[in-house]
Amino acid sequence: MTRRHRAWRASAPPRSTANSACWAVVALESTIITHGMPWPSNVETAKKVEQAVRDAGGVPATIALLDGKIRVGLDDDTLLWLGQARSVLKVSRADLGFALASGAAGSTTVAATMICAHLAGIDVFATGGIGGVHRGVEHTMDISADLTEFVQTPVTVVCAGAKALLDLPRTLEYLETMGVPVVGYGTDQFPAFWSRSSGLTLPLRADGAADIASMIAMRGRLGLAGGVVVANPVPAAHEIPREEMESLILQGVADATREGVSGKSVTPYLLGRMLELTGGRSLATNIELVLNNARVATEIALALRSLSR
Amino acid sequence: MTRRHRAWRASAPPRSTANSACWAVVALESTIITHGMPWPSNVETAKKVEQAVRDAGGVPATIALLDGKIRVGLDDDTLLWLGQARSVLKVSRADLGFALASGAAGSTTVAATMICAHLAGIDVFATGGIGGVHRGVEHTMDISADLTEFVQTPVTVVCAGAKALLDLPRTLEYLETMGVPVVGYGTDQFPAFWSRSSGLTLPLRADGAADIASMIAMRGRLGLAGGVVVANPVPAAHEIPREEMESLILQGVADATREGVSGKSVTPYLLGRMLELTGGRSLATNIELVLNNARVATEIALALRSLSR
Amino acid sequence: MTRRHRAWRASAPPRSTANSACWAVVALESTIITHGMPWPSNVETAKKVEQAVRDAGGVPATIALLDGKIRVGLDDDTLLWLGQARSVLKVSRADLGFALASGAAGSTTVAATMICAHLAGIDVFATGGIGGVHRGVEHTMDISADLTEFVQTPVTVVCAGAKALLDLPRTLEYLETMGVPVVGYGTDQFPAFWSRSSGLTLPLRADGAADIASMIAMRGRLGLAGGVVVANPVPAAHEIPREEMESLILQGVADATREGVSGKSVTPYLLGRMLELTGGRSLATNIELVLNNARVATEIALALRSLSR
Ligand SMILES: [Mn+2]
Ligand SMILES: [Mn+2]
Ligand SMILES: [Mn+2]
Repeated sequence: MTRRHRAWRASAPPRSTANSACWAVVALESTIITHGMPWPSNVETAKKVEQAVRDAGGVPATIALLDGKIRVGLDDDTLLWLGQARSVLKVSRADLGFALASGAAGSTTVAATMICAHLAGIDVFATGGIGGVHRGVEHTMDISADLTEFVQTPVTVVCAGAKALLDLPRTLEYLETMGVPVVGYGTDQFPAFWSRSSGLTLPLRADGAADIASMIAMRGRLGLAGGVVVANPVPAAHEIPREEMESLILQGVADATREGVSGKSVTPYLLGRMLELTGGRSLATNIELVLNNARVATEIALALRSLSR
Repeated sequence: MTRRHRAWRASAPPRSTANSACWAVVALESTIITHGMPWPSNVETAKKVEQAVRDAGGVPATIALLDGKIRVGLDDDTLLWLGQARSVLKVSRADLGFALASGAAGSTTVAATMICAHLAGIDVFATGGIGGVHRGVEHTMDISADLTEFVQTPVTVVCAGAKALLDLPRTLEYLETMGVPVVGYGTDQFPAFWSRSSGLTLPLRADGAADIASMIAMRGRLGLAGGVVVANPVPAAHEIPREEMESLILQGVADATREGVSGKSVTPYLLGRMLELTGGRSLATNIELVLNNARVATEIALALRSLSR
Repeated sequence: MTRRHRAWRASAPPRSTANSACWAVVALESTIITHGMPWPSNVETAKKVEQAVRDAGGVPATIALLDGKIRVGLDDDTLLWLGQARSVLKVSRADLGFALASGAAGSTTVAATMICAHLAGIDVFATGGIGGVHRGVEHTMDISADLTEFVQTPVTVVCAGAKALLDLPRTLEYLETMGVPVVGYGTDQFPAFWSRSSGLTLPLRADGAADIASMIAMRGRLGLAGGVVVANPVPAAHEIPREEMESLILQGVADATREGVSGKSVTPYLLGRMLELTGGRSLATNIELVLNNARVATEIALALRSLSR
């Protein structure tokens, strides 16, 4: 392990192994497998997402921590194991060194996946939704480490916005304060995960992968640190209308309060409650938006590869 | 463009073109031209500010984005065009790569001007007031990206504090948390833009440009990242007393609420309202404080040049 | 001075002078001497803490600013002088360049000590408690610069958590958002300075110095920026139970409000009030927890030295 990490410490990651040369590699996270979806949808979705990247002409690289190593690209047996394992750590930036040193199995959040992708020379990463500012932040100061990761790690993350359970207006304000670009992909609006729009206007809009790639390349030439959020709405055929979803979220938040659910337990509780309240549609929409993000991420990786030739 | 930006990406900017060698260059921002003042005061002021730098022995470099390039130093025709153009983007850190890649015209905020100045090897920048923590931040989380820019970009910004429309106590707390020096220039008090003091005490005070230059040089030797806020009060002859200004601001905020002005529209609305309520004095004071900042910034640039010889 | 700082500016600090080679150096801060404890307990404690490091097999290096130089390691006369001096600046990141350029005497906070330790190639630092998010932050935005220092400066700080006067739940949230590891040392709970637990669960736990050293080394190999908080509870024999302490703190906060104490004056006021209300036990506990942290920090420095051999 030591030798491998040593190599990665070089100031320039070994980019020839990833996007810039032959392949358009797209990183994928593993927390969606271990903590984001129920079995067996999690593994089925993980495989479909990898296939979506391949179908679009890219190479998928699902990232996880196993035996004290960062694994970039998982085989089917490992996906299957991760999808059923119960003791896998959810690893963010703060936990990454500890988890690797301890040798424990870990799934990587958006923040940790960005770090590992960058170490491996991968520029583009597809996920469902990034973390954000939590509702009630005025009482808790609960803000996901995903947001601060964009300040320093130069990876482009294609997502359907932040999970709509979060406080979306404040999530956008926080990203603006931190100087993080949030680019609407074919939209002027910040998506709301299950819905195509949150009603919040974005300052930046791109209507194709080439525009995103040009922006990323320009940021590189300027030496600007940090990553880019590409906010890609779920296809219209699969969205759950915002009014419907927001009322279910408010109901779920009220249920959580009534049942005394608090802290770290709130998000998984709410995701489960959304599944019940929508009769499974929230999961179907979630799967579709991840597939859609995988396709767009691959287009961006291909466009970046074209630029670097 | 590519070649030019490539050069700038080198770890050390081409400093010989700026302060350290022959010239004491002072960067100036362009958002004050496109969004901060009405035509024709904006262009008249921009020219006066450039002249103030020259009169003090420096070289002015107003910064803007044109045709996909960062322009450091604008000719009079360009100033004139910018001062009347209606579709110029207001560009901060988050938008910089996008704006340059798209080729759109852009004026640079304090944050973006700091980035561009640093790329061009310019150490000192004069403006009116920096952005800050907005009043009502407990509801909005609205904090200007100018503040976080000071964490990473080593440029000294001479200003009359933050615009007094903002929440000044919280702006100082935020800068303290981020480890950003705020040095009173000939004062122990944080200025309040149109007024010489906000009533808030600053921990650091310098009574001359040489002290600021020594501090900047020491920070460089220590390898400390980030910039410095030099808080320079408007000359007494031109100030609007704090009590008067604060009561007009509160009136303006109430008007905004009554008229349903919110979000990004609040600051331009309030600036316009201050202009009306003071019968134009707010603009006259604004112009004087920018001129004063340009003079002090030039003195600091000259002092830095002396040190590096 | 110039030459010395120049040397430190090299991208790699002169590590051979510190931990990695012969000695296990532990940095110690000086604000605890000038602002944290009353005379003569402050100097007596400083000497005992240095002796505790020596007894554990390490080399203590108390850090302060004198005559425009960073002093890493103080002789007894200097300790004595610092312990009685009245005009010593309390220096954090924001003030460091200014204080050194001015030549004023300064004691270093946790943030500034981390910076100086890193410049001197020291990896481990023992203190009492770090700063944090202040109670009432929703009104003040008062958050210590110590917390943001952990984002960029790769020093491991052994402490008994954050001072319990602070808002501990929000302090943990802030560190999590910033991606800073907080590792319980022999505990699953975040300590509360005078008490062994705050009731808040930590995600990371280490039961020995070797585990901490492995994590630090792994973070280095991954190129992760920033430091680590090792949260080490006061030995049980010396703790003041949390319920008792929390009720005294709430009483102290109420007293402060009643007497109109605000801003920067609150923390020293409350520390003095705790001393009165506990009949001196708060100071005795404070001394014991610093000694305990010095021992653990030395063990970690020794473990790091073993790894690097
Ligand atoms: Mn959280
Ligand atoms: Mn804003
Ligand atoms: Mn504070």
